[in-house]
Amino acid sequence: MTTETIALREATTLPAGFLAAGTAAGIKKAGAKDMALFLAEGPAVAAGVFTTNQVQAASVKLCRERLAVPSARAIVVNSGVANACTGTQGRKDAEQMADWAAEALQCAPAEVLVCSTGHIGVPLPMKEVGAGIRTLATAAAPGGGRDAAEAIMTTDTRPKYATTTITLEGRAITVTGIAKGSGMIEPDMATMLAFLLTDAAVEPAALQAALAAAVNLSFNRISVDGDQSTNDTVLALANGAAGNAPLSEQAPGWPTFTAALAALTHDLAMKIMRDGEGVTKVVTIQVSGARSDAEADLAARSVGNSLLVKTSWVGSFPNWGRVMDALGYSAAKVTEELVDIYYDQLPATLRGKAADTPLDALKAVVAGDRFTLGIHLNLGDGAAVVYSCDCTEEYVRINR
Amino acid sequence: MTTETIALREATTLPAGFLAAGTAAGIKKAGAKDMALFLAEGPAVAAGVFTTNQVQAASVKLCRERLAVPSARAIVVNSGVANACTGTQGRKDAEQMADWAAEALQCAPAEVLVCSTGHIGVPLPMKEVGAGIRTLATAAAPGGGRDAAEAIMTTDTRPKYATTTITLEGRAITVTGIAKGSGMIEPDMATMLAFLLTDAAVEPAALQAALAAAVNLSFNRISVDGDQSTNDTVLALANGAAGNAPLSEQAPGWPTFTAALAALTHDLAMKIMRDGEGVTKVVTIQVSGARSDAEADLAARSVGNSLLVKTSWVGSFPNWGRVMDALGYSAAKVTEELVDIYYDQLPATLRGKAADTPLDALKAVVAGDRFTLGIHLNLGDGAAVVYSCDCTEEYVRINR
Repeated sequence: MTTETIALREATTLPAGFLAAGTAAGIKKAGAKDMALFLAEGPAVAAGVFTTNQVQAASVKLCRERLAVPSARAIVVNSGVANACTGTQGRKDAEQMADWAAEALQCAPAEVLVCSTGHIGVPLPMKEVGAGIRTLATAAAPGGGRDAAEAIMTTDTRPKYATTTITLEGRAITVTGIAKGSGMIEPDMATMLAFLLTDAAVEPAALQAALAAAVNLSFNRISVDGDQSTNDTVLALANGAAGNAPLSEQAPGWPTFTAALAALTHDLAMKIMRDGEGVTKVVTIQVSGARSDAEADLAARSVGNSLLVKTSWVGSFPNWGRVMDALGYSAAKVTEELVDIYYDQLPATLRGKAADTPLDALKAVVAGDRFTLGIHLNLGDGAAVVYSCDCTEEYVRINR
Repeated sequence: MTTETIALREATTLPAGFLAAGTAAGIKKAGAKDMALFLAEGPAVAAGVFTTNQVQAASVKLCRERLAVPSARAIVVNSGVANACTGTQGRKDAEQMADWAAEALQCAPAEVLVCSTGHIGVPLPMKEVGAGIRTLATAAAPGGGRDAAEAIMTTDTRPKYATTTITLEGRAITVTGIAKGSGMIEPDMATMLAFLLTDAAVEPAALQAALAAAVNLSFNRISVDGDQSTNDTVLALANGAAGNAPLSEQAPGWPTFTAALAALTHDLAMKIMRDGEGVTKVVTIQVSGARSDAEADLAARSVGNSLLVKTSWVGSFPNWGRVMDALGYSAAKVTEELVDIYYDQLPATLRGKAADTPLDALKAVVAGDRFTLGIHLNLGDGAAVVYSCDCTEEYVRINR
C-alpha cells in the first residue's frame, strides 16, 4: 500500500462519532471565525507531534503533558492569539480554556486538548474565549468540519482539508484531516496546526508512531520562510467507532492505515505550501548522492531556505549559480566538481559547470507553478526531499 | 587605542607608492566600469581572508595559493562575472588575467592577485578582460582610487571607501580601504570584496593576523540576506613606503595600526549594510548573557537572518514575538522565562513576557533608519554583536 493508491476527497466529512464546530468569538477584530472544536462523542485514543522550538506556547506545553495519558475527548482551538510568551497567565488561560470546555462538554479537563495560533506575546481575551467555548459546545455537529477548518485560519486564504475512506477487516474506515498554515513554516512544522480524526480503533503507541512517521514525511519537509513557530501542533484522535479490532503495527491493515495517514498529511502539507504567504510556485528539492541522508537533508534545506534562491524563482530564472552557492555553504559535504543540477528532467549543471541545455528550456520549467530541482552530489547514497517556494514582494507585504 | 579614536576621511587618497585605476572593459553590458587595478610600485607584504564556502571562485583559489608567499605587487579585479563554477577553463582564465597583468606591469605573475565578482557560472569574456588590463596598466595613477572603487561595484548603488592617517614613530602612515558589496552578504563575508592598502611596513604574519582580526569584527558580523558568496575576498597590501621599521605584534605602534585597520573595516562593513539591496534600516543585534560567546553569536545570527524578523522591521513594528521565536529555534540555549529584549534603551520583553513600555515608544525606535536590538539571555557571560537589516519588497525586486 503506498500513499499514491489512497483516494482523497476534498471534503470535511467527519468520521463516525465525531462532531465539530467553528465560530466567531471576537478574538479577531474583523468578525472572522476564530474558535473551533473537534469532539469525540466517546473516549478516543490521542497522539500528538509538536514544535521543537525552545520557546513554546502554553497550549503546546499543556498538550504535551496531557498526552502522557494518550486519550482525549475534545480539542479546542483559537486563532488570532498564539498565547505564546505570556508567562504564568498564559498557562492559566490555556488551562481555563480546557476547564470551560470540559464543563460545557461534560468530560474531564484532562480529556481536553488546547491549541492556539496567532500573535505572540498577546494575552488571550478570556471573556470572548469563554463565550466562544459555550457556543462551540452547542453548535458541535457531524457537519461542522468546514466551519472548524475556517475557524483555525490565520493568514491562510482558504481552509485546508481532505478525507479518505479505506477498508480494514471489511469495514469502511474514514480518516479526515484539517489543517492551517501559511507563514512561519519551516521543517519541524511552523505556525501550522493539523488535526487527524478517524473512526478506526488504533492502539495508542501505534497511533503515535504512525502520526510521527507521517509528519516527518510531510509537515517536516516543507518550508515557506525558514521560521519555525512556537505553536506547531499535529494531533490525531482515533475513536474506534468503526468497530475494528484495535490496530497495532503488526495488524494486516496497518500498511493501509499508515498510507492513509501519510497521504492525508502530504496532501495537507502541499496545501499549506500552495497557500503560503505570497507563494506563486512550489518547488520540490530532491537531493541525492550525499554522504548520508542527514547531509542530503542539510543540503536540501540550505537551498530551500536561501533567500537568493527563493527570490530567483520569482523571476522564473534558472539561477543554478545561487543553488551551487547555497550548497557550498551548507553543512553538508559538497564537491563543486561533482555536482549535477536538474530542473525537472533538464540538466542545468553537470559536474559543477553549466550544461548545454538551452536557457529558454530551463526558463520554461521555472516559469511553472511547480517543478522539481534535482541535485545530485555524487558523493554517496544519501537522499532527501524538501518542499520550498518562492519569496515574493507579496510575502514582504504580508509580514511587514 | 580604540577604533573610536581613529579619524576616517571619506576619500580614496592612496598611500604613498600605490597607484590605482578603473575602466569599462565591456564585461558589463551597459558600459559601466568593470575592471580595477591596485598597484604597488615596489614589492608589498600581502595578506588575505576569504570565503569559507565550499564552492569557491577560481580567483579565490588562485589568491589562496599565491599568498603562501605573502608578497604581491598588484591586484586585478573584474566585476560583472564571478568566474565561479567555471571549471578548469575558469582556472585558466584567472591565471591568464594574472599573466597579462604581470606582462603589462613588468612584474612576476606570482606577484599578481586576482578577484572577480558578479554572475556565477558564466565564463569571463577574455578578449575584453585582456584589453581592460592593458588600459588599466596605462591608466594607473595615485588619484585612481575613486575609479577603482566604482569599477568593483555590482548591485552597489555607490562606491565605498575611507582613508585614515595615523602616526607611527613620528611618521604619517596612510591606510586606505575600498570595498564593494550589497547582496549575498552573510557572515564570513559574502559577495564582498575589500582592499586595504597602507604605506606602513608590516611583518607578513602580523599583517595577516591584524587583517583576520579586523575582518572578524566587521565583515564577518554583517548579514544582508544570509547567503554567503563563492567570491568573498579581503586583501591587504603594505608597501613600507612610509619608512617605518616593519611592524610586529610587539611594536609600540601595533595597537594604533590595528585600531586603524579595525576602524576602516568596520566603516566599510557599515557602508555595505546601508547600501544593502533594498535596505532601509540597519539593526545592531547585541546578544549578552548567553552560555558562551559562540552561543551568543548563534542566537544573534538566528534573529538577524529570520525572514519574519527582517520583514517586520519594514513595517517599523517592534515584533518581539518573532524575535523570541527566532531565539527559540536557534542552536543556542534559550530559556523563555529569562529573556529580556530591548529596542535601544526601551524594554519590550522582560523575563519572556511583554514589558509595559508603550507600543508607540517602541515603534518610534523601529521607525528609525538604525537602532539596536538588545537581547539578554541571562544564562551566562557570552556576548556577540551582528549587524542585520530589513528585507523589503525592493530586495525581492532586485534579486528576482
